Amino acid sequence: MSDKYKFELTEADLPKAWYNINPDMPVDPAKTAWNAVLHPGTLEPVTPDFLSVLFPMRFIGEAMSLERWVEIPEPVREIYKLWRPSPLHRAHRLEKALDTPAHIYYKYEGVSPVGSHKSNTAIAQAFYAKEEGVKGFTTETGAGQWGSAMSMACSFFNLECHVYMVKVSYNQKPYRRIIMENFGATVTPSPSDKTEYGRKVLAENPNSPGSLGIAISEGVEAAVASNGKYKYCLGSVLGPVLMHQTVIGLEALKQFDMAGEYPDMVIACAGGGSNFAGFTFPFIHKNLTEGQKTRVIAVEPAACPSLTKGKYTFDYGDTARMAPVVKMHTLGHGFMPDGIHAGGLRYHGMAPHVSALVDSGHIEAIALDQLETFEGARMFAQAEGIVPAPESSHAVRAAINEAVKCKEEGKKKVIAFNLSGHGLFDLGAYDEYLKGNLKSTSGYSETKVEEAMKDLPQVAL
Amino acid sequence: MSDKYKFELTEADLPKAWYNINPDMPVDPAKTAWNAVLHPGTLEPVTPDFLSVLFPMRFIGEAMSLERWVEIPEPVREIYKLWRPSPLHRAHRLEKALDTPAHIYYKYEGVSPVGSHKSNTAIAQAFYAKEEGVKGFTTETGAGQWGSAMSMACSFFNLECHVYMVKVSYNQKPYRRIIMENFGATVTPSPSDKTEYGRKVLAENPNSPGSLGIAISEGVEAAVASNGKYKYCLGSVLGPVLMHQTVIGLEALKQFDMAGEYPDMVIACAGGGSNFAGFTFPFIHKNLTEGQKTRVIAVEPAACPSLTKGKYTFDYGDTARMAPVVKMHTLGHGFMPDGIHAGGLRYHGMAPHVSALVDSGHIEAIALDQLETFEGARMFAQAEGIVPAPESSHAVRAAINEAVKCKEEGKKKVIAFNLSGHGLFDLGAYDEYLKGNLKSTSGYSETKVEEAMKDLPQVAL
Repeated sequence: MSDKYKFELTEADLPKAWYNINPDMPVDPAKTAWNAVLHPGTLEPVTPDFLSVLFPMRFIGEAMSLERWVEIPEPVREIYKLWRPSPLHRAHRLEKALDTPAHIYYKYEGVSPVGSHKSNTAIAQAFYAKEEGVKGFTTETGAGQWGSAMSMACSFFNLECHVYMVKVSYNQKPYRRIIMENFGATVTPSPSDKTEYGRKVLAENPNSPGSLGIAISEGVEAAVASNGKYKYCLGSVLGPVLMHQTVIGLEALKQFDMAGEYPDMVIACAGGGSNFAGFTFPFIHKNLTEGQKTRVIAVEPAACPSLTKGKYTFDYGDTARMAPVVKMHTLGHGFMPDGIHAGGLRYHGMAPHVSALVDSGHIEAIALDQLETFEGARMFAQAEGIVPAPESSHAVRAAINEAVKCKEEGKKKVIAFNLSGHGLFDLGAYDEYLKGNLKSTSGYSETKVEEAMKDLPQVAL
Repeated sequence: MSDKYKFELTEADLPKAWYNINPDMPVDPAKTAWNAVLHPGTLEPVTPDFLSVLFPMRFIGEAMSLERWVEIPEPVREIYKLWRPSPLHRAHRLEKALDTPAHIYYKYEGVSPVGSHKSNTAIAQAFYAKEEGVKGFTTETGAGQWGSAMSMACSFFNLECHVYMVKVSYNQKPYRRIIMENFGATVTPSPSDKTEYGRKVLAENPNSPGSLGIAISEGVEAAVASNGKYKYCLGSVLGPVLMHQTVIGLEALKQFDMAGEYPDMVIACAGGGSNFAGFTFPFIHKNLTEGQKTRVIAVEPAACPSLTKGKYTFDYGDTARMAPVVKMHTLGHGFMPDGIHAGGLRYHGMAPHVSALVDSGHIEAIALDQLETFEGARMFAQAEGIVPAPESSHAVRAAINEAVKCKEEGKKKVIAFNLSGHGLFDLGAYDEYLKGNLKSTSGYSETKVEEAMKDLPQVAL
């Protein structure tokens, strides 16, 4: 066992293929329908033709692929090399601060120039669009992580990038807007008058602060209306997005070889599920094929607890019911979570793959209050230096809780979590926390969920 | 020669000693007085006793040391390992964008959790204070890089950290304040009513926006008044600070061995001089002792051109004439540069070591307009992903200019620069640039300098 602080791979160690969990999904497809994507109008399975209006063909092919290892195209690997492989840290100083016998490791995705894991799939999606000769992308962004990653990726491939940014974030998080514009993207506050749906929303409510659901609808509409000039891209939930993120877990596996240890548990936060899947699916693969017994823990916010309190059923991907219908843990497409600071975890649903594996017991799920997560994040920063993103702080706190349990039980476990991004764009949230203005998580209630689920799609699959 | 994107060392390669240029200074001490530190009142050389009120003894010893290699204490190296060694990048994509035969390398100090090189000396100074058993530090910060680094360092060593932050920055850059508070520091807008000098300034001008000079004076006064409970710390200019930063250049030398190339020129921005010295002094050492002929280029802002337009003479370190007097390139301690966005480069003087070596011709100096530097920084971000700090952008632009020259002359030179920090805290400046609100640099004029030099200390050394 090595006592180093960082386990760093070289460019030569960068994975040559992503891990595609499709062929290994240990669940009944009839029951879980994890690979079903239904048309929001007809509720029939969509055709590649339908999807190809929105997504590059190679992306659609990946969604349906049953190959376990999907080659990472060389131009994508070349760009990964700008910041990958990302380091695996041993949190020696945090262990000491907690006085725990546990060994705590974290994989750090904040080394990406835009500060989060999102670039791993943005680069791939931009390359696929470039291959097909389109002019660029339309997309949406909430807090801005996805929009910044996509703007950078488009800049690298000389593609246009048109981002619909939830208006309240557009106004509150100017730094995210600016970094997108610096990469050459155009950023439009949503709802906007650029799309029919946006105009409809504005007509009903001129002061609408916007929502991710509305922004998705505008991004989709703009791509469809462009007649193939622009593709649309999504930063989570879909199978290929989850797969692109597995570069994280695959690197981590090699790094644990270097460390001479293997994790007893792997932890990541889950919003749409791509960060979580990217880190943990390669470990699940080991559980399935090599008899490892690593616990796999998804952490979500108590304000938006799709996995721990949602229903496992078919639902629309967006509020406006324009996005495909999939089977997932959902709070209802009409669920509007409170404005917690972990903006990336405010999605009403969850990736179908992750949902199916929670349903089957391969993944555990827990929910944490935002006061706990900020407390944990601050403890982490004071020990390790890095200020975690509010989303990542959910994983941080869960790891701390497990390490404290190890101390109480006198057990030396190996705990690993994914620090999906840094919080340098989110210091406003820390300010609220430090000033004592943050409230314990509210926003979830059974009646609210019942209301949001009123018009679930009626699917007989 | 290797064509990799990144040249990464392991923890085992982390330097065990800093490079102290004192014994190698190739200049006449009588003429340059590079090691003289005079009392601001008496203008006589200060005694260690005088300095020890402000600085830890080990720090003072380093200032006077003639040992070429000064051991990095193990507790400092342990903390360096949280993010060091920092990577040396080959800017393949920037080279391609510029279509230049030059090879461009950059050392990236933005991997520090607080995003700049400043932590390299903050950690050392905090450790020295801890050794002496003091309670903590008082210090000042302008834009906030130094204050954040020092807050993190104090958090690591369980020291208090009291930061006087220039009031206009305190109000304009809340993120920097918040990150300091998150590390447990107290941040006071300066001028404040906590010190005699602050109260004096406020009495004269209740709306004073503050200045680095005023904040330094408050930090110094607070340390002196504490009767040894607190020490004061400075983030640049002084010899030991320059030396602590040489970990950057020493790592880079090893990384160029890996790359199989050696730089024809090394470039860094220069404000107080520590980032510049840290990167380039180890290369100057090779020039002096191994016959290398690497050009060494300091880049300063045209708005505050101490090296290219200042006078090489004795001057006070601060506006209020409470800090020691040293011989340096200065625009006059009364010089108030315009509010350019590279806040870290707005110092009226320059480190005595750097000044002496510019005077002797071992270092070249150039000044760049802020419009050029932002243009270069944006070009860099679109090629390499990383958004540079406005300070670092001076080095970026100088490197681009040299690479373009290489193209024009058909010469394949090896260009290396230090990317001292990222610009994620400075996106407001990019917004101004993108909106076309930034003006070509003004703020420098000969009459303004003459005015600022009116009461230079009269030193007959």
